[in-house]
Amino acid sequence: METPDNATPTGIAAQDWATASAVPQYRAAVIDLLGALAYGELAAFERLAEDAKLAPTLADKAELAKMASAEFHHFEQLRDRLSAVDAEPTGAMEPFAKALDDFHRQTAPSDWLEGLVKAYVGDSIASDFYREVAARLDTDTRALVLSVLDDTGHGNFAVEKVRAAIDADPRVGGRLALWARRLMGEALSQAQRVVAERDALSTMLVGGVDGMAAGFDLAEVGRMFSRITEAHTKRMAALGLAA
Amino acid sequence: METPDNATPTGIAAQDWATASAVPQYRAAVIDLLGALAYGELAAFERLAEDAKLAPTLADKAELAKMASAEFHHFEQLRDRLSAVDAEPTGAMEPFAKALDDFHRQTAPSDWLEGLVKAYVGDSIASDFYREVAARLDTDTRALVLSVLDDTGHGNFAVEKVRAAIDADPRVGGRLALWARRLMGEALSQAQRVVAERDALSTMLVGGVDGMAAGFDLAEVGRMFSRITEAHTKRMAALGLAA
Repeated sequence: METPDNATPTGIAAQDWATASAVPQYRAAVIDLLGALAYGELAAFERLAEDAKLAPTLADKAELAKMASAEFHHFEQLRDRLSAVDAEPTGAMEPFAKALDDFHRQTAPSDWLEGLVKAYVGDSIASDFYREVAARLDTDTRALVLSVLDDTGHGNFAVEKVRAAIDADPRVGGRLALWARRLMGEALSQAQRVVAERDALSTMLVGGVDGMAAGFDLAEVGRMFSRITEAHTKRMAALGLAA
Repeated sequence: METPDNATPTGIAAQDWATASAVPQYRAAVIDLLGALAYGELAAFERLAEDAKLAPTLADKAELAKMASAEFHHFEQLRDRLSAVDAEPTGAMEPFAKALDDFHRQTAPSDWLEGLVKAYVGDSIASDFYREVAARLDTDTRALVLSVLDDTGHGNFAVEKVRAAIDADPRVGGRLALWARRLMGEALSQAQRVVAERDALSTMLVGGVDGMAAGFDLAEVGRMFSRITEAHTKRMAALGLAA
């Protein structure tokens, strides 16, 4: 049974970590989740720092460096949480390294605007995902995930820059729309690989520990991806990019 | 007249920014200094983030990313200070971009250990320089410089790693000693270029605004470089690198 986002929390969402983690499958799933998020933040730090080199001005470079630094602080929070629940952070992160590294390798921006769109898309998808997953977690893990989420949204500066570039040259919009589609396609393709390989994590993502008893529901994973894709499409349209 | 570091502050070192900055030459020199430090921190962020890619483990990567993130926060403090004193941060940084970019381009580490030695040497030289300069500044600027300095010293983790590598293979020590010498040589060469080009900054560095009346004393700049080089040599010896 999935807990609807707006209902009063029941089941796992009403439990704290000490209670919820007594179920070994839930504990393993949360450690998987924290490991995936932690590696995701560390990889995002690296890529944003790399993309900062493409900045046309020092002020732009500083903005991307600021996003990179924020991702690093998210990484620290998630890693510290892994240690606090007696999980080995490196071991928890490693299963997700290949998928995230592959994503970044296949979506290396070729210029500053592609870098900005990637920063914005990545930040937004991360927010959506954190929000989706928060409702399925115990109270302690949820508080951590929401506090990391609270600190995202640095991507908004990218919106103005991309809009201005499209206004100045509308052909830029077509190229960036294709780019945004490719980013989403690669993200989904890597996410599906992770889902296929990490059963406990995937099961928790779709139903929390309460849903675990009911088993893994691939259709619900598909619906979660659809919701995230739809939000992405709306954001791209608002940005002037037909997605 | 130079204010000795250990004496009760007199002259400029006893004044606040509002008083001291009434002297246009001092104001220009401090803006130069803050611009140079700010660009230095931003460039250090970029290079450490880049060097983090060479890390053999995720934990090592996280350590270098942490140093990079700390440099970014120093950059933010210095940039915000430039804005607070009505200086345009980008304009203040630009005169120093080429020297710092050239330094980093000419000292790109070829492996993880070279990256660690560079992080440690860079962190240490920055500390020494901040300390040298702090005594020559008005009370407000000094407080900022000391607060940025307070937060350095992340380089110490590098010391253990480098020591362990030399213990495991003493030939590594010879190679890294040459590397450390090259780092210091490049740093001095770029610093001397800056000194030659930025008279007001250089004059302040050696004597504060009190010394400005006495004019630019190249010999004293040389002595400051000597003190920093000497401290570097001692650190390298302690690290097992004959410098």
